Amino acid sequence: MDYRKQSLIEHAAWRGKIEVVPRVEVDTREKLSLAYTPGVAEPCLAIQRDPEKSFELTRRWNTVPVITDGTAVLGLGDIGPEAGMPVMEGKCALFKAFGGVDAFPLCIRSKDPDEIVKTIELLAGSFGGVNLEDIAAPRCFEIEQRLKADLDIPVFHDDQHGTAVVMAAALVNALKLVGKKRENVRVVINGAGAAGTAITKYLLRFGVGEVTACDKSGILCEGDETLSPAHRELAALTNRAHLKGALADAMRGADVFIGVSVAHCVTGEMVRSMARSPIVFSCANPVPEISREAALASRAAIVGTGSSENPNQINNVLVFPGLFRGALDVRARTINDEMMFAASEAIASSVRGELSPDYILPYAYDLSAHEAVAKAVAAAARASGVARK
Amino acid sequence: MDYRKQSLIEHAAWRGKIEVVPRVEVDTREKLSLAYTPGVAEPCLAIQRDPEKSFELTRRWNTVPVITDGTAVLGLGDIGPEAGMPVMEGKCALFKAFGGVDAFPLCIRSKDPDEIVKTIELLAGSFGGVNLEDIAAPRCFEIEQRLKADLDIPVFHDDQHGTAVVMAAALVNALKLVGKKRENVRVVINGAGAAGTAITKYLLRFGVGEVTACDKSGILCEGDETLSPAHRELAALTNRAHLKGALADAMRGADVFIGVSVAHCVTGEMVRSMARSPIVFSCANPVPEISREAALASRAAIVGTGSSENPNQINNVLVFPGLFRGALDVRARTINDEMMFAASEAIASSVRGELSPDYILPYAYDLSAHEAVAKAVAAAARASGVARK
Repeated sequence: MDYRKQSLIEHAAWRGKIEVVPRVEVDTREKLSLAYTPGVAEPCLAIQRDPEKSFELTRRWNTVPVITDGTAVLGLGDIGPEAGMPVMEGKCALFKAFGGVDAFPLCIRSKDPDEIVKTIELLAGSFGGVNLEDIAAPRCFEIEQRLKADLDIPVFHDDQHGTAVVMAAALVNALKLVGKKRENVRVVINGAGAAGTAITKYLLRFGVGEVTACDKSGILCEGDETLSPAHRELAALTNRAHLKGALADAMRGADVFIGVSVAHCVTGEMVRSMARSPIVFSCANPVPEISREAALASRAAIVGTGSSENPNQINNVLVFPGLFRGALDVRARTINDEMMFAASEAIASSVRGELSPDYILPYAYDLSAHEAVAKAVAAAARASGVARK
Repeated sequence: MDYRKQSLIEHAAWRGKIEVVPRVEVDTREKLSLAYTPGVAEPCLAIQRDPEKSFELTRRWNTVPVITDGTAVLGLGDIGPEAGMPVMEGKCALFKAFGGVDAFPLCIRSKDPDEIVKTIELLAGSFGGVNLEDIAAPRCFEIEQRLKADLDIPVFHDDQHGTAVVMAAALVNALKLVGKKRENVRVVINGAGAAGTAITKYLLRFGVGEVTACDKSGILCEGDETLSPAHRELAALTNRAHLKGALADAMRGADVFIGVSVAHCVTGEMVRSMARSPIVFSCANPVPEISREAALASRAAIVGTGSSENPNQINNVLVFPGLFRGALDVRARTINDEMMFAASEAIASSVRGELSPDYILPYAYDLSAHEAVAKAVAAAARASGVARK
């Protein structure tokens, strides 16, 4: 099927992928008087006395906005706030279908971090958490950090951390299959934007031995004065061997390749130059860094992509519904490493039956995987002291 | 029933009066690929080329936020943004139940008109219209005017205009029953905040002969240098006889009393001093200016209140669902007088069977009344040239 052509037809027929529905009846005078005036005055006053009650007497406990400025939508780039909305709506549908979360799409007509942060902070009393989406790097780092510092509800930039969490889950199972240990492998990450930066930092915290990060001008190496501040920070964490050169140089002898970059930048020869049993996660969208077929033909042991057309789709749909479900269920103050690590492990453990090179992740629509993530995340929030209940 | 006590119990059990649900299935790989990646890229690109397509390819066409700063919630006053949310949620439930509108509650943690206007303008690409709610006067006037000037979607402050529209509907039928003409009557309006100001201006535009506006210091009279700018403007439009004095002086000889003020400020004697067949709309909440019983005992011909416990509840629930339904259906650029007049007349015409002093308005949960409003508003938008389709 030509999904994109068909999708346009379907979207025109759907006229929206979500809707807001009442959970109460209002078809008699009595019911109206309880859900609305005059009865509603009493819950209002209870919240005035104790604003925390807004998590008990309204839907706030289960409500998360999916917010974008439209500057980094899918692989399409800066297409504008309104144009990002089909993605935000889709995400809201997935939030409910897989996590039971009431998510609502919002686009912000600004690219100014101050305005974006201010807007979200002014609205935060309406929500139980905040999901940032498709905001371009490096702006997204600052926006997320400031919101996390200022708000006492979970703030999560899915393009960064959702991607990192699912990538780590895929890595856990891939390494199991090729019989290598996390702490002994070297991972090459190509693409040092929002996703690549977050994956790099996350995998290092998750216990991966060594990461070599590359962007379009090649290997990031400490001491290179031409790097941006964000890339300097990355260079200081990675590439402890101080390799220099192009992506091909980075890949020579590496155990794992993770691409969150652009189409066709990896050749079969580059895969053949990797260490034994190469793991290739080629996730550029819609066209990967190297096709699954080409990677396998060049002796890759395991291949994952971003595409639903191939086995091993590495899709952050596996992360955000369960992660927020778990965080909201225990009223977590934040989303910390412990919760994300728990999510990665829960996803990896949710593969049904036997692991195989073509089956290293559960399917996105496998509800039991989402439930496992939610449970693990809630437990990790409690254990790490960020749960309020 | 003690609605307020029972309502608190119900709210704790409901844990939210609305929820967000998917309108699409995402339970197979194919369906996921259409609603989300990779298919969703195509509607995104279509909207990038023409942002107007966001009204066709997302839920924007049917989506309205119910936004408050929590400063004038019901008769409770400035109780804070989170504490206003039970009202906003209730309103969202009514929007869907009676108008089919997808409304979403938002509270803003600011009392600064600049911040409130900015926040709403930055989010406007997410919505088909904007419903402002429970924002204190005079700030609400400035906020609404600026938003109406800047946005090309309908903006409506319900406390002002919803109240005015339903009050006019009640007046149309009450005047019919007492055999008086709109242009010949004098109306006293007590309470010159958001609602009283809007009702005054609206009734004058609607063709009412004369209005005498009062606030807590008595009759507003042109030339009084102690008046605030907003009250000066009102004084210049009203009280052409230049009456001075207290509310009791205003009511002497008047045909209609409309109270949107405080409990117990009207006596039986004041009602008896009115012209023949007094019409008394005593809408202070939860306790009226004069009780229905006391007004009737003082020879009032028709009494309306804000309470669901009495006949003739004058409730703006009769207005906003159908008004937005009609405006959204024709993609109106704004909500103008023609549309509001049409709503008032449609509500008045929706009384089933015979008018009587105890039955001058349809019931709030009468779906056919809401449908009549929607139809009349859509037709008026088209006739007045503000409909886009």
